[in-house]
Amino acid sequence: MTDYSNDIILTGDRPTGPLHLGHFAGSLANRLALQGQCRRQFVLIADLQALTDNAGDAGRVAQNVLEVALDYLAVGLDPTLSPFVLQSGVPELSDLTMLYLNVVTVARLERNPTVKAEIQQRGFARDIPAGFLCYPVSQAADITAFKATLVPVGDDQLSMVEQTNEIAFRINRLAGRDVLPEAKALLSTMPRLPGIDGKAKASKSLGNAINLSASSEEIARAVQMMFTDPGHLRVSDPGRAEGHAVFAYLDAFDPDRAAVEELRSHYRRGGLGDGALKSRLNDILQALLEPVRRRRKQFARDPAYVMRLIGEGTATAREVAARTLAEVRGVFGLAKIEPLPVDRKRLSATW
Amino acid sequence: MTDYSNDIILTGDRPTGPLHLGHFAGSLANRLALQGQCRRQFVLIADLQALTDNAGDAGRVAQNVLEVALDYLAVGLDPTLSPFVLQSGVPELSDLTMLYLNVVTVARLERNPTVKAEIQQRGFARDIPAGFLCYPVSQAADITAFKATLVPVGDDQLSMVEQTNEIAFRINRLAGRDVLPEAKALLSTMPRLPGIDGKAKASKSLGNAINLSASSEEIARAVQMMFTDPGHLRVSDPGRAEGHAVFAYLDAFDPDRAAVEELRSHYRRGGLGDGALKSRLNDILQALLEPVRRRRKQFARDPAYVMRLIGEGTATAREVAARTLAEVRGVFGLAKIEPLPVDRKRLSATW
Repeated sequence: MTDYSNDIILTGDRPTGPLHLGHFAGSLANRLALQGQCRRQFVLIADLQALTDNAGDAGRVAQNVLEVALDYLAVGLDPTLSPFVLQSGVPELSDLTMLYLNVVTVARLERNPTVKAEIQQRGFARDIPAGFLCYPVSQAADITAFKATLVPVGDDQLSMVEQTNEIAFRINRLAGRDVLPEAKALLSTMPRLPGIDGKAKASKSLGNAINLSASSEEIARAVQMMFTDPGHLRVSDPGRAEGHAVFAYLDAFDPDRAAVEELRSHYRRGGLGDGALKSRLNDILQALLEPVRRRRKQFARDPAYVMRLIGEGTATAREVAARTLAEVRGVFGLAKIEPLPVDRKRLSATW
Repeated sequence: MTDYSNDIILTGDRPTGPLHLGHFAGSLANRLALQGQCRRQFVLIADLQALTDNAGDAGRVAQNVLEVALDYLAVGLDPTLSPFVLQSGVPELSDLTMLYLNVVTVARLERNPTVKAEIQQRGFARDIPAGFLCYPVSQAADITAFKATLVPVGDDQLSMVEQTNEIAFRINRLAGRDVLPEAKALLSTMPRLPGIDGKAKASKSLGNAINLSASSEEIARAVQMMFTDPGHLRVSDPGRAEGHAVFAYLDAFDPDRAAVEELRSHYRRGGLGDGALKSRLNDILQALLEPVRRRRKQFARDPAYVMRLIGEGTATAREVAARTLAEVRGVFGLAKIEPLPVDRKRLSATW
């Protein structure tokens, strides 16, 4: 395994809904693997970023801060190793964003492929909120504030790391020295988990995801409904494993890789029923999510405690971000202001 | 005189160079008149805003923070009545800007006539820094952070107040109540002071302005060079008072209005030389700027003291801005985070 012991990692989620198995396969499992293996892993609950396209539905964002933290704790993210950071609790990030906005052009932001794709996806057209256009700059602030050297991303988010490095380059050039490190993208080796309906992406809004907090019955029902090979009518028929949701989930969660390959060959040859596959997957997911659900319930009993954990991680993050901000302010030559008491008599004497 | 005793005023300058007589006629005189007549007058030294088009020349901005404060003190702005606020010392302004960016569209910012005019003026074309496009939102943060009800502006800045009120309207609509007051523009009744060369605007970059710190000799020389009526060849000739820089300056600074009108008629009739006018103006400007220059020199002896005055005003401003930010965060439903100590044993016991 690569040595990450010198790396600072920034990762996180927008708190717009409960996390699901797609998040687990795509990033949470990775965070668990990196936890304790790197210098530090900051896990950002990006509530401000969530507002960039949810300004009118702010209550939902605030509620989901707790839900996302519960999901983190439930899967085993340890806030003492991987501080949970509430983005809106680190004002230094806003200050950095404001400074970085001066070294990025509007044209460059409009060319950002991730933003372009998301603008289309959301149907914003010309009515893009300015905050949405600027959010790659806000992400650059998140990444650089913690001097993160490693940013786990999907391939659709690569341009965000690129934009961050462009900004870091400009700041370093202004400074004449390396103030901000280069961030490397850590691409997920896992293919994206499809929805239970076989659609390319499991997502809350499509209603085709299995939440980490799903009950035993919900898991069973979801597995039962999973998209298989519509041409596979009799058990004896040869089946197609491509686009088969059950195989995609087995690939993601079955620890016995050899057994899955054997099942896939068998399915292709014919003679293996979808029911047997679903039964195997159900067992695996139940075993995976039972302790997650149990821990989630325990933590959910005391939301104030969870918010304090977030508070502690956020305070740790502020210390780090404040140091970076002071450096970047220095690069822009901003005056230092100390609110010391002033001799007023002297003021009136001078006039 | 209108009653401003309930008004909170926000005014200020970008610290990009020394202030000159154009600033005095256009805004400083107005601030002196309002000082003590309103509930409070915040005077913002907008260093962050200055960076939006000076990112590569940050040292100049930082230096001019002190220079601008010296100019303020020299003309008689009293920081105990009109706190001097360093924009970059109030991080709440960045936080508010980030929140407001979510309720303004990119298209709306691109339509802002002031920004449009300035983009053309600066030759930015498509290479506009994102911070420049967003600066009306930053101004809205400045104005609303202090709940300013009155914003003295030139007519070319009216659209900034409009943009601010649009944002306040959206925040209030989200809140379902009036969180932010409406800001009214206080239009200057003074026509813009022309340059000594007769050009429409006195400005440092055009080199046609008389600085507040100008020496007696510099003032005399500038008055001597002033643009008059090029067709007025002999004293006995009728002259044109329109576009005549000396008359524009007399209109701005000669307290004896009737005498100026009489001089204007005389000039038009013929028989009044430019030398006589210049001599009168020189006397007036010398009398106006002598005490300004003297006070400036006194304060300039102790820059640390001046920076402390700014520090004190900035601290006052932070208190007010923090209250507004808390309210606006509430409107967006942002979670409150308190960094309280966490019981770690309990954390490990739960896993």
